[in-house]
Amino acid sequence: MSKRVIIVGAVALGPKVACRLRRIDPDAEIIMIDRDELFSYGGCGIPYYVGGDVAEIEGLYSTTSHAVRDADFFRTCKGINIMPQVEAISINRKEKKLNILHLGDGKKEDLSYDKLVIATGATPFRPPFPGSDLPDVFTISNLHNAKAIKDKISSGQVDKAVVIGAGAIGIEMAEALTDLWGVETTIIEMADQVLPTALGRNIAVIVENQLRENNIKVMLSQRVERINGDKNKGVQSVETPNGTIPCNLVILSAGVRPNTKFASNAGLATGMSGGLLVDRRMRTTDPDIYAGGDCVELRNLVSGENMMMPLGSLANRQGRIIANNINGGSSHFKGTVGTFCIKVFEMGVAKAGLTGKQAQDTGFDPVYSIVAQHDRAHFYPTSRLMYIKLIADRKSRRILGIEAVGAQGDAAKARVDAVAPLIEYGIEVDNICGLETGYAPPFASAMDIINNAGNALDNILEGRNRPIDVIDFIKEFKKGKTKVLDVRGPKEAEPFIKKYGDKWINIPQAELRERISEVPGNEPLCLLCDTGPRSYEAQLLLENNGITNTKNIQGGYAMIIVAAPEFI
Amino acid sequence: MSKRVIIVGAVALGPKVACRLRRIDPDAEIIMIDRDELFSYGGCGIPYYVGGDVAEIEGLYSTTSHAVRDADFFRTCKGINIMPQVEAISINRKEKKLNILHLGDGKKEDLSYDKLVIATGATPFRPPFPGSDLPDVFTISNLHNAKAIKDKISSGQVDKAVVIGAGAIGIEMAEALTDLWGVETTIIEMADQVLPTALGRNIAVIVENQLRENNIKVMLSQRVERINGDKNKGVQSVETPNGTIPCNLVILSAGVRPNTKFASNAGLATGMSGGLLVDRRMRTTDPDIYAGGDCVELRNLVSGENMMMPLGSLANRQGRIIANNINGGSSHFKGTVGTFCIKVFEMGVAKAGLTGKQAQDTGFDPVYSIVAQHDRAHFYPTSRLMYIKLIADRKSRRILGIEAVGAQGDAAKARVDAVAPLIEYGIEVDNICGLETGYAPPFASAMDIINNAGNALDNILEGRNRPIDVIDFIKEFKKGKTKVLDVRGPKEAEPFIKKYGDKWINIPQAELRERISEVPGNEPLCLLCDTGPRSYEAQLLLENNGITNTKNIQGGYAMIIVAAPEFI
Repeated sequence: MSKRVIIVGAVALGPKVACRLRRIDPDAEIIMIDRDELFSYGGCGIPYYVGGDVAEIEGLYSTTSHAVRDADFFRTCKGINIMPQVEAISINRKEKKLNILHLGDGKKEDLSYDKLVIATGATPFRPPFPGSDLPDVFTISNLHNAKAIKDKISSGQVDKAVVIGAGAIGIEMAEALTDLWGVETTIIEMADQVLPTALGRNIAVIVENQLRENNIKVMLSQRVERINGDKNKGVQSVETPNGTIPCNLVILSAGVRPNTKFASNAGLATGMSGGLLVDRRMRTTDPDIYAGGDCVELRNLVSGENMMMPLGSLANRQGRIIANNINGGSSHFKGTVGTFCIKVFEMGVAKAGLTGKQAQDTGFDPVYSIVAQHDRAHFYPTSRLMYIKLIADRKSRRILGIEAVGAQGDAAKARVDAVAPLIEYGIEVDNICGLETGYAPPFASAMDIINNAGNALDNILEGRNRPIDVIDFIKEFKKGKTKVLDVRGPKEAEPFIKKYGDKWINIPQAELRERISEVPGNEPLCLLCDTGPRSYEAQLLLENNGITNTKNIQGGYAMIIVAAPEFI
Repeated sequence: MSKRVIIVGAVALGPKVACRLRRIDPDAEIIMIDRDELFSYGGCGIPYYVGGDVAEIEGLYSTTSHAVRDADFFRTCKGINIMPQVEAISINRKEKKLNILHLGDGKKEDLSYDKLVIATGATPFRPPFPGSDLPDVFTISNLHNAKAIKDKISSGQVDKAVVIGAGAIGIEMAEALTDLWGVETTIIEMADQVLPTALGRNIAVIVENQLRENNIKVMLSQRVERINGDKNKGVQSVETPNGTIPCNLVILSAGVRPNTKFASNAGLATGMSGGLLVDRRMRTTDPDIYAGGDCVELRNLVSGENMMMPLGSLANRQGRIIANNINGGSSHFKGTVGTFCIKVFEMGVAKAGLTGKQAQDTGFDPVYSIVAQHDRAHFYPTSRLMYIKLIADRKSRRILGIEAVGAQGDAAKARVDAVAPLIEYGIEVDNICGLETGYAPPFASAMDIINNAGNALDNILEGRNRPIDVIDFIKEFKKGKTKVLDVRGPKEAEPFIKKYGDKWINIPQAELRERISEVPGNEPLCLLCDTGPRSYEAQLLLENNGITNTKNIQGGYAMIIVAAPEFI
């Protein structure tokens, strides 16, 4: 007798399980239910639909050959039945029955199953401040919301918007509102940086600067106190302790919560974030019930801790694994190293592994390098600066994380993708120094930025390179705790000497050997060049001449212009 | 007493050893000699200088901060002495002396050393046919040649050129001649494909097609018999058994030979390709003599065999390792997985590991998948098709190689770079199915092409997907050995039905379940869709209905248009 598999939830993971299972088991009875009547859509595409990159909303639930993924498509093309507008209410695990509610007519029904798959995803969190439930306070949760937002903007009803939360969705939505529609947009974030769970602060400031340069107001370390407005007029403003921001649209992007209530009511174990706990085969505590996607917790392969990682890409990979296992296979999903990327206007941002702070919280002793270098051979005309931060544990030299930002997004992401899959193997700094990626001048330098990030970190760990990051440097400089020795040419140094006077000393690196007596040997000095290598060489030269109270500004001038342009 | 280190050769590896060693050992006496008076240049940049991307030749030997890397630069900025126009003649290993010849005045001299570094690179091979030594028959070997070529073209003396050898340099030079200068260019290659050592044939045809579409004539399986011309008039034509090609410039790009004569004369061991043999610390058979770069053989980490891999990127990585070891460290260079990339007009091509043929020669039983898919989410406006070939060993499922081609070069290279560093760890197909690379719609699909290449290969290895590659399909189809079942829409199939009549059957995939009786069950059928997934589903559906004599055309129509446009 063929087995009956019921899948709860028909976005990302659910359809993947269903289609794969149908292909490898032509006889299984597969029923997929969903609360909505739109499913199998690319939810991550919503900001691009709102921003106009995707013209029609159907684009988000069509195949590459322009077939709309509706119930008819699943039936005729895939051989799968979908029951739309049906909600899972409870599970009778003993009898292996799922109780469902037909949202249309309010009728309830029991469906028996051999295997059950929970793919219920997550719901955006609505913070408990007053007004968060007003009309025109939108979350990015489904295509209905997406359409409502775009309709509202495209009909000219929005000139000012506030985005609450500077995570990935918040930033993508802010870009969508600003770039196409010219909506005056403010992002409010509780943490002291954008993308707080993804990036360390010294890379996040580059993203923050990119947002500001594209006319988005960014307010950090801010709490929202209330959203003002009423049911009829919609929202009018957002109140913070530092002022009130007028607006006629609010996007809430303050994280998501896994949809696991009916599952945990049935006694399935959930973790510290409320996500379902699953084993490597993606089975819940009940071996006949699988779960995956945004409603489960995943093992972070660097920290060893569980985490939520709501990404369509992971959901799809898990979907295939669940289908294999339902079919009697033994496929494993080990966890995640937290690989992440985002486009921020014409900039690509990517990361994998832990941030410095997360590494510290886990009990590592993180050390990092920051390198600015061209993404192609520097003589190649399209080459642009890229920034990489590489983090390792001091004692074990194990790579803990990497972050990259660059004007050519694919190129920045490429560097992270080359390192990400290695992180789970416990590779060390030396593996990055020698990492073998493709080389040709239109795509990379002979000593690529990724290798130089490893080399710089090796030098730092060996104590040869004593670094300071730009944010700390500016702090110390402003307090008068350090002077600058600028080893660039006189023309480059001139505006700084004008601005900062005798706190800014200029000796070009080529002259440093001869003019070493001019360097003040007793006081703290921060060394600056274009991107870091010459100031590092200067540091070694000074060291060799007994001048040891120096720090090398990581990423040099190239880092200052993107992280703290106001300093220039 | 400080040690004296002599470095023979001042391009790529040599300067890297010198500069790194100076930084970590301020006291070492470092002497670098070179036959030329131009050094430390980016030789891989020559095609881009000839093609105009790099305007001035100084661009190839300047730093990012526009300092020219001449002898003065090395002395003042780096603290390193270079002796230009000096050739190494012989080594007295017992007394640790290098005998050198001053090319300017013909004087000889002995230099004693504590450590010697051989960084003499390789010389382009001049095949022994008549005329290969004529003027205007150029190799791409140094900046003097590069300048002579560009001067000749830019002064209007070249309207037709022949490039002999379709390796990376040949293709890059052909592009340079055609793209900027409009020179009518023919590439002649002995093998039956372009990039014969880098790619399998079914990906190489895409590159070949790209060259033809950009007005480069490609002649494969051709031997050059002679180059006609004389000392005064230069070249006039290139003769092959299939005809004579008039031209006034010939580029010889038929591979390189390591410059190791004086080293092997001194008794240092060389391998089967004539390159010096080195251990993991990059020491030759004499522990006081190091070698690296294009004059050494490297271990291929997949095949276990030694190979030549003349790439500036590997030379640089080795340079750092040699410097560390000379300074008493213990740094290792394990070998290479043969990562490679090239830009071919607006297309990026990348590979790592072995080709199918190389895998077979090594004793593996290679199985491959070819997948065509968008490089970004298919709904994202800038998404373009990419092609990936993934090769594994049948029994062990170990990944042996990957090849990628795409319109957005960074994105194609990124997929290869994500897999390349893993190959040496012996990862298997399943690791690619689950490979965790960054996901956001502007950069990738939720189920990225790299994962789908793994999934397809898994399906093939499991016997679920019975593939045929496009080249084999066309061969069989033309011989009348197979019909086609085209499961795309009627509009897509129409031109083929017109052209190929009843050998081309069209049943859209959505109708296949109902119309299965129309499928001829007894005769061989090749299944076609846009890119492969629907024809794979059709294959399973037919299989389940007892129709088993089918093959799924890998990459579908998307592969035909790039590999065999004349078929359409």
